[in-house]
Amino acid sequence: MSARTIKLIEIAERVLVDNDEVASRVQRHLDAAGVLAVNIIAGPGAGKTSLIGRTLAALGERARVGVIEGDISGSVDTARVLAAGATDAVQINTGGNCHLEADMVERALDDLDLAALDLLFIENVGNLVCPTHWRLGEHLKLCLVGASEGDDKPLKYPEIFAASDVVLLNKIDLIELVDFDRERFVDSVRALNRKAPIFAVSCRTGQGIGAWADWLLAQRRDPGQDPLCASR
Amino acid sequence: MSARTIKLIEIAERVLVDNDEVASRVQRHLDAAGVLAVNIIAGPGAGKTSLIGRTLAALGERARVGVIEGDISGSVDTARVLAAGATDAVQINTGGNCHLEADMVERALDDLDLAALDLLFIENVGNLVCPTHWRLGEHLKLCLVGASEGDDKPLKYPEIFAASDVVLLNKIDLIELVDFDRERFVDSVRALNRKAPIFAVSCRTGQGIGAWADWLLAQRRDPGQDPLCASR
Repeated sequence: MSARTIKLIEIAERVLVDNDEVASRVQRHLDAAGVLAVNIIAGPGAGKTSLIGRTLAALGERARVGVIEGDISGSVDTARVLAAGATDAVQINTGGNCHLEADMVERALDDLDLAALDLLFIENVGNLVCPTHWRLGEHLKLCLVGASEGDDKPLKYPEIFAASDVVLLNKIDLIELVDFDRERFVDSVRALNRKAPIFAVSCRTGQGIGAWADWLLAQRRDPGQDPLCASR
Repeated sequence: MSARTIKLIEIAERVLVDNDEVASRVQRHLDAAGVLAVNIIAGPGAGKTSLIGRTLAALGERARVGVIEGDISGSVDTARVLAAGATDAVQINTGGNCHLEADMVERALDDLDLAALDLLFIENVGNLVCPTHWRLGEHLKLCLVGASEGDDKPLKYPEIFAASDVVLLNKIDLIELVDFDRERFVDSVRALNRKAPIFAVSCRTGQGIGAWADWLLAQRRDPGQDPLCASR
């Protein structure tokens, strides 16, 4: 574990702001610095922090990565991503709030040197519902689900699948053990979202992480392109 | 699958009510009918509906069980629990709301014949955060997590573990595959909640379901007792 001090923002009182206005300001700030931001949305235990760790390893020297960790409490995830090689990281504790909001991210940016970063992962609170409609200033909304959570998640939580720019199916090392129908999953994502690439990965074994990391890096270079990916 | 018509309540507009007041009314209604109600709270894909199905099978003729299914959309879970042997079931579609509220449950009770029931499962929206503080009139708050979601869930989502009357750890058939430290999990639940029994189960293999179902039935007969359970 890194010996660095954890930068922690505790959200105590909420101030009423226009979230979309702050989100646009955050995005302009990131654009000016040339940083591509990814808002990672998933239920509890889908593997958000593991995905960041694996992606850091796959990117290696190709990108300098900052992380904003959103949790109800605790700072264990920030320690984990720093130990995994993140260039910089800030922990936000939402004090019970079930999702991040743009003004929390804006405060966290004050603690990051954006000039030293190429990519920024924003790990949202573990929740597949509430974060969906809160723009944070991200360029890409990423929806992550685990195969062990079942192939029916797009049917149950359609809004996040419809709103996402990229979908990652994690824990495919368990897929044979949990009666997961991959075709059914892909079809139901496609019924909601015709464009988002779908990557099948295992953050435990590393399977599929290389293709995902390459795609992500290409988004920074050329956000408009439509790359090939593993599951299309 | 049952050929019965699915009873569906679609929540369109929300009326401002005092949730605790409605929850108390719901509980009085249940008490008068002698029905024990369990509010099942879990993240997406932890196995809420599978747990209900397995528990129905384990209870057999010993209890008549009603189910209220809360989902953002769809009615597939209600069809599943009816097929699994529920005496009666009602589907609530919350229209995007991230948790059930007491007035939704009160409306659903109108569609259930409580005199024909001994137990009522209320399956909340898949969300480990927001449902925590919304009383629905239940007698028992149940927190369900899967081993494949990781042993750190009590650290990340302390409020629901602190508030629960019983904790179920599901997917223990996967426990050897996912680096889950069972002692760490139990210790961190105990740090938040000294009383709630912890049952380790697999809704896929049926392991541990008998002990849980026996305990649940004993709660109806004698809600004050403190029974032995598998994991203490």
